[in-house]
Amino acid sequence: MTQRYKVTIAYDGTNFAGFQKQPQQRTVQSVIEDALNKMNKTDEHIFIVGSGRTDAGVHALAQVIHFDFPHDIPALGMKRGLNSMLPLDLEVKDCEIVDDSFHARFSTHGKRYMYRVSRGEFVNPFKRFYTAHYKYPLDIDKIRAALPDVVGTHDFTSFVAAGSQARDHVRTIYEATVREDHANDEVIFEFYGNGFLYNQVRIMVAALLEIGRGQRPVHDFLRLYEVKNRKECYRTAPASGLYLKEVVYNQPQ
Amino acid sequence: MTQRYKVTIAYDGTNFAGFQKQPQQRTVQSVIEDALNKMNKTDEHIFIVGSGRTDAGVHALAQVIHFDFPHDIPALGMKRGLNSMLPLDLEVKDCEIVDDSFHARFSTHGKRYMYRVSRGEFVNPFKRFYTAHYKYPLDIDKIRAALPDVVGTHDFTSFVAAGSQARDHVRTIYEATVREDHANDEVIFEFYGNGFLYNQVRIMVAALLEIGRGQRPVHDFLRLYEVKNRKECYRTAPASGLYLKEVVYNQPQ
Repeated sequence: MTQRYKVTIAYDGTNFAGFQKQPQQRTVQSVIEDALNKMNKTDEHIFIVGSGRTDAGVHALAQVIHFDFPHDIPALGMKRGLNSMLPLDLEVKDCEIVDDSFHARFSTHGKRYMYRVSRGEFVNPFKRFYTAHYKYPLDIDKIRAALPDVVGTHDFTSFVAAGSQARDHVRTIYEATVREDHANDEVIFEFYGNGFLYNQVRIMVAALLEIGRGQRPVHDFLRLYEVKNRKECYRTAPASGLYLKEVVYNQPQ
Repeated sequence: MTQRYKVTIAYDGTNFAGFQKQPQQRTVQSVIEDALNKMNKTDEHIFIVGSGRTDAGVHALAQVIHFDFPHDIPALGMKRGLNSMLPLDLEVKDCEIVDDSFHARFSTHGKRYMYRVSRGEFVNPFKRFYTAHYKYPLDIDKIRAALPDVVGTHDFTSFVAAGSQARDHVRTIYEATVREDHANDEVIFEFYGNGFLYNQVRIMVAALLEIGRGQRPVHDFLRLYEVKNRKECYRTAPASGLYLKEVVYNQPQ
């Protein structure tokens, strides 16, 4: 009997060409589908649906996928089976059997992203794939003063990368925070919103770092919402600092 | 004028075939010597001396090297120059010009190693190269009770890997600690001693984990010192968990 599984996964994005399947590329989707189709004893091909894509080099602490599987495997068995099949840069953190109405992409209420910036004059060898390095002076108070402008419902056209297929660019950000992790010499951003456009978080972080460095006025986001022009905001912070931290769903399963 | 430099380096050992130069291999020594010999405008070939070797996959937070350089470059200039030449998995943390009597290997008073063990049923993707994964139950109190047996001057013949060139196997360990990092779900060992034999820390950690798991009596180290037989202690914990954390020198430079 076919059952729907909701699976929460973590991955180190360094060696993946992003989430979405692409010919000749090692992607999160292809690696998971390969494992599932080895576990599957029917002729049916298993496809997975993710809450959304992540780019090459972007990490996930808790990405969510769903798929329909034609064998009656308990949730814990599925978790263990998948973990035994998957490579070490991809881990199943949680697995539940859910109602057919659950959809990893369409049922989302919001997503939380974290962005880690490492400080210091030189790149820390242990962080080169797991943070963005930013050596310039930063006034965190300026960034903190800009964050209320990020929160709310805005047209993020100035913050969307070419290649986006989104029809409209209005999104709502519920929370935007920054904190300094002095012990690790990092600055850490978090954004929680109802959805994010292609590269939106990385473009926003690049603009916020420019505000912190004094290269952009503190309340420049208000102007950027008006001008609706990516050329006003053309930098993109590196993929290595970005983590999909949480996907929140509308109703409990 | 030739000057001696004492340089403290950090490296992610994952992509190095260890510290020591070997034909056709990417090693810490060869990467640094290549950079130095590009900076050097004389015919003289620059060699570096490390405080000791680290194996493939072993990390360093503060390895120390010295070399003689035939140009009068200030310490900060050497640090910046080297960091601009070196790959991102190797960083110069500190650089000093020292007296010719300083020797990175012979002047050592002691070395501190850290060993990180990650817990949980499955491998955390972000820790696969930076910890050893140990999924079995551990009684930390048993390990803690064994650590006083580690401290002191002992014959570590049971804890030395084949391939060691050490003539005698007596070493002194000044400190041996274990702590649980609950936030990161890790168990972290530290050992400070006057010197360590080939693979000694990794073999000791493997034995301590067996004590914690109940597979070996708490005070088995006392017996292992007596039997002087590696076969009694044949496991070696993985390189990925080991960090050279500090090298302490006899006199201030």
